[in-house]
Formats: sequence, C-alpha cells, structure tokens
Amino acid sequence: MLVLSNEEIARLLTIEECMTALEPMYRDVAEERVLFSPRVDNIAPNPHPEAYYAFKHMGGTWPAQGVQALRINSDVVTHPLVAGKPRRVKQPLAPGSKGGRWVGLVLLFSTETGALLAMFPDGVMQRLRVGATSGLGLKHLAREDAQRLALIGSGWQAGTQLAAALTVRRFREVRVYSPRRETREAFVAESKKIHRVDIVAVDSAEACVDGADVIAAATSSMVRVIEPRWLKPGVHVSCIKTQEVDAEVLGRCDRVLFSNRRQTKHLDNAMKDTPNLKAESGRGWWNDGTVRLDRFPDLADLLSGRAQGRQSAQEITCFMNNVGTGLQFAAAGAYVLKKARAQRVGTELPDDWFSEDVHP
Amino acid sequence: MLVLSNEEIARLLTIEECMTALEPMYRDVAEERVLFSPRVDNIAPNPHPEAYYAFKHMGGTWPAQGVQALRINSDVVTHPLVAGKPRRVKQPLAPGSKGGRWVGLVLLFSTETGALLAMFPDGVMQRLRVGATSGLGLKHLAREDAQRLALIGSGWQAGTQLAAALTVRRFREVRVYSPRRETREAFVAESKKIHRVDIVAVDSAEACVDGADVIAAATSSMVRVIEPRWLKPGVHVSCIKTQEVDAEVLGRCDRVLFSNRRQTKHLDNAMKDTPNLKAESGRGWWNDGTVRLDRFPDLADLLSGRAQGRQSAQEITCFMNNVGTGLQFAAAGAYVLKKARAQRVGTELPDDWFSEDVHP
Repeated sequence: MLVLSNEEIARLLTIEECMTALEPMYRDVAEERVLFSPRVDNIAPNPHPEAYYAFKHMGGTWPAQGVQALRINSDVVTHPLVAGKPRRVKQPLAPGSKGGRWVGLVLLFSTETGALLAMFPDGVMQRLRVGATSGLGLKHLAREDAQRLALIGSGWQAGTQLAAALTVRRFREVRVYSPRRETREAFVAESKKIHRVDIVAVDSAEACVDGADVIAAATSSMVRVIEPRWLKPGVHVSCIKTQEVDAEVLGRCDRVLFSNRRQTKHLDNAMKDTPNLKAESGRGWWNDGTVRLDRFPDLADLLSGRAQGRQSAQEITCFMNNVGTGLQFAAAGAYVLKKARAQRVGTELPDDWFSEDVHP
Repeated sequence: MLVLSNEEIARLLTIEECMTALEPMYRDVAEERVLFSPRVDNIAPNPHPEAYYAFKHMGGTWPAQGVQALRINSDVVTHPLVAGKPRRVKQPLAPGSKGGRWVGLVLLFSTETGALLAMFPDGVMQRLRVGATSGLGLKHLAREDAQRLALIGSGWQAGTQLAAALTVRRFREVRVYSPRRETREAFVAESKKIHRVDIVAVDSAEACVDGADVIAAATSSMVRVIEPRWLKPGVHVSCIKTQEVDAEVLGRCDRVLFSNRRQTKHLDNAMKDTPNLKAESGRGWWNDGTVRLDRFPDLADLLSGRAQGRQSAQEITCFMNNVGTGLQFAAAGAYVLKKARAQRVGTELPDDWFSEDVHP
C-alpha cells in the first residue's frame, strides 16, 4: 500500500497529464462503462462556534484501468463574510505539523484483486482535476482565437484554472481580480514565475472582464460572482462552483455544458434549523428547480461526440464544473500510481495492515 | 492515526461490550441525532472467471461520540453452489501474508477536528456488531424462558450469533446445523471451548430446529434457509441476511422487527446482463415489492420505546438484521478506540500522512 504526499503528487502530475488521464475516462462515462457512487454530503454539529462538521465522499469505478477510487473529505466548515459576501471556508483543526491541518483523502483500490493500492491527501490532485476538467471544457467551447483571459478568484483553485486555460489556448493577456489586494497580487507574482504570459492584477471585477474572451471564475463564493451584463457575444464562461452563476446568467448563454449531469447527489443535514446552513443545504440552484441539470449535456457527451462544442464565433458559451466525481480521482490516481511505482516514489506500508485473513 | 489489527480488536471488544456500545447509538437513531450515508453497492467486471468486483461502503455520523465512521469493502465475489445452493463468497485475492487476503476497512474520523483517528480491518468488528445487533433483538423478542437454540450455519458469523444469544438468554441446549459435516463439527468443537453450554452438531435442519425456542440463521445463503412450517407458537427467528427468509416466512410471524428501516440503499451494477448477478442485483425481497421495509419497526424504535418487544409467550417473532450501517462501526469503533488509547494498543502512524496543509 503506497502512501503519497501532496508534494510527490505535484511532481508526478502536470495539468497536461491530468487532462490526458481524464479524457478517456469521460468517454467511458458516455459509454456507461463506469460507475459513480452517490456523492454524499453529511452535515452535523461541531463544538466550534459558527462551525459545522461536513463529511463528504464520492466514489468511482473505472474497470478499464482496474481501479476503484474513493475520495473522502472530513471538514470543519464555516461561512465567513469576505468583502461582505459569504464564503465556504474549511478550518484546519486536525493535528499534525505546521499547526492545524485539513483532512481530505483519496483511496485507490484494485478492481482485480480488491487490494487497497494507495492512499494520499486530496489537495493537489483535487485542484489539478478541477483545472483539467475546466480545461477540457474550455478547449471545446472557447473561441480558437481567444486572447484575453479574465480570472475571478486568486485562491487555491485559481492556479490550475489558469494553467489549464494557458494549455489549451494561446492567451496574450490575463487579468486577475479577487476582493483582497494582497492575495491577488501574491497570486499574480507567483503565476508570473510559472507562465510566460502577460498577467496583471486589477482592482475591480469590471476591469477584469472588460474585453475578455474567456471569463473564468475560481472562487469559494456562496453567491453569484458573474454578472449577466458581462456576457458579450463570443465569450466563454467557466465556473468551478454552481453558486458562481445563477439561472439568469445561464439564460444568457447560447450553449451550456456541465461537467457531470449523471451523478446522484445525496445531501443530508442533522442541523436543519441552523440559519447559516441554508445556503449549504440548498447547495446550488438545481435543488430548487431553477435549473434542470438533466436538460444540459455534459463533458462525457462532448468528448464522446454526442454533444457539440462551440459552433460559431458569436456564441456565448458556459462550462460549469458542477460536481466533483470519484472517477476524476480514479483516472488521475491510476495515472499517478503507475508513474509513482515506475519512479519508486512514495512510502510503502505493509499490505497486511489494510487487508485481512478472515472473510469479512 | 492509529492502525489496529483484527487480533487487537478481538482483545478489546467482547460481545457484551459491543451490545453496550450499540444501544445508545440506536436510541440516537430514533431521535434523529445521527446521519446515515447511503449504503452503496457497486458491481463491476473483474478478470477472474465467474467473479465480479463489488465495492461497498456505508457511513455513519454520531455526533454524541464525536465520531464519523466509514466502512469500505473491496471484494472479488463469486456465487458457488454449496450442497446445491448458491452462496455469496468473497475471494481472497489481495496480496499480503498467508496467501491471498480480503479487503474490508473501517475509517474513523473526528467530527470535532476532522482528523482521521483510526483505520482497521473490518472482519472482527463486523461479526461482533452483527452478533450484538441480533442479540439486542433477541433480548426483547425471544421468550424469557427460552431454553433451546437452533443455529443454522457454522461460518464466520455463527460464532457471534451464538455468543450474543448466550449473553441475553440462559439456553440449556444448542443444536448446530450446516450442510458440510466437517465445518459444523469443527465449529461445535471450537464453541465448546468458549461456552459452558450443551452444544451439539446435527445432520439435518429439521433435527436442528425441532423443539427450538429460538431459530437463528447465520448463513451466506442466496436462497431461503428457514422453512415456514418450522415456525411454532412462541418461537423467535433471527436472521442476518434478507435472503434467509421470504415473504411467506415473514407472513407467519406475529411480530417482525428489522435492524434498520431508515438507511438509503444504493445498488448499481455495470454488468446488468450477467445472468449469475440476478440474485445480487435483486438483493433481497424488498426491492421487488414483496415486503415493504418501511411498514416494519426497527431496532431504534424498539430500544427507544416506540415499538414493543414480545407481548406474549405464544407470539412468533422475527428479528431481521437486514442491512449493515456505518453507525454500527461508529459506535463499536468509538468504544474500541477509547480503550485502545487507554491501553496503548495499536500502531501509531504520522498524522501528516493522512492530512494536509493546503485547503482542499
């Protein structure tokens, strides 16, 4: 059983490799050669003020690669106001080095022997697969000649959104906006070290999106961050969270694709009366009937040729990374595991600890 | 993060302790102070002949003990015929010592900090919580003066069914039947070392149940093992698998309780056309509408006083251990973890391996 660290995964998986790993998985989704587990979000009381406990997991079976993935998040969540707007912020309260830590784990099993093959924190792979998924959408939905990218958000997810966009289109200019100046400037400084493109921080969302060919939101916002008036002909909008847009925004688009229209979602809440959990319980607009998820094609439809990408330069398109799936971790995980073994990266633990000699 | 072995758990948890650990959890179930995750059964192709891959998981949040459990089974399953009847048999194909091994794991998280607290194989706890659950049913449903126990089955589950029954009633005689002579005689020889009661192996099911006050099935059968004609006034029937009885058997009972009428069940199968998977896909009679699960009270109702136990010496009663829940592992796991820490049992692994310093 191989234990990998976030640092090791960062060395083993680039955004291009992640896109390459995900693509055949999405085609197998369209062919129904995979299984999703329901994505579960359980919310329960927690002793910390203004916080609640959230246990989330999502599984995915991908027989073609002989892998079963389960991604687990065990979080203490708060909804602080940042620049007047609520965000979803996980508090790092678990013990470990460097003070408190977050708890997100991926387990990979073999569908051939049943064995637990590997276990690793989810953080680095999580942002790579979100970025790679948005990148696959952008590749088929943004204009081929897109030149200006507007990035709303400068947190953990923004880095791979930027990297994926730069992988699939030759942008000449990137503008970055997020409410806190220090955060966005630090992000831009960091990004300039990695990417050879003109990247600037701007001090308003309007300045960010002005003249943009692609508007990519990468936020933890619990409320809309994309304004309908920003959507000019030819623009592509990319989201990583359903709350970033709403039915009005989607209504202005000519073509909307979701990352996934198929996975069962199961939300349960032991604290139904807690007022600050309403946004959490609602969890995006499809639950309230405003947007019917099943009426839209998804990335599997697109990559298997059952749905079309952009059809004209004038279309307003949108790609919504609406839900994570265990299959993304199965695909990226199978790739990383193969490479880690070939390069002898990671820490091997005794298989006996994670298996048994009695029929359970 | 504490790793425990099956052997360590066997030393830390008796059947009585397991019953004591489960009881308050069932009362919290009735009060809706817990959360179930959907129990997921995903079935997918596997390269071994006549086998398929089954990935199962069940979660449970028990805030009163600050614990979130997730139990995971990653199995290669076959349905061999034993004495002419199909069974569900998991093949030990995972690598490790003593040849092939099975893969069942329990993960315990803290609902206070999110941390992964412990990880251990499920086997020993799995049979203890099944036995303890049946024992809690038996305690309230069997006649107080029950003297003769018929045990159908002599495999892994039979041991804790016997132990639990002997814990809650003063049986004077136990008869054991299973189709293979060697297996049942070995089981009886082993049981005699543990229990001070008259235990005999018999060579037919009829001889086993004749005059019994309690008939306990503990099998892996995919077809009925309890005959309706065996059910005389005053008898209590105990099952660990829905297939052990059918609507006809339940129809002869005056009082039927399930272990759990509340948990969502999610079964998905990527091999829908494979003939030998029909039994698996059907998975008990409630899916075909023959028995309406939600019409029966369950153990949480019973232990919280919302449903009654046996009301007369003449009643025919039945307790159906119809589905496992992650909450059983949360309750037994929280108890074992506390005791393991107090006694410094188990192997501590670095918390950093199972947490992260980035917001996932």
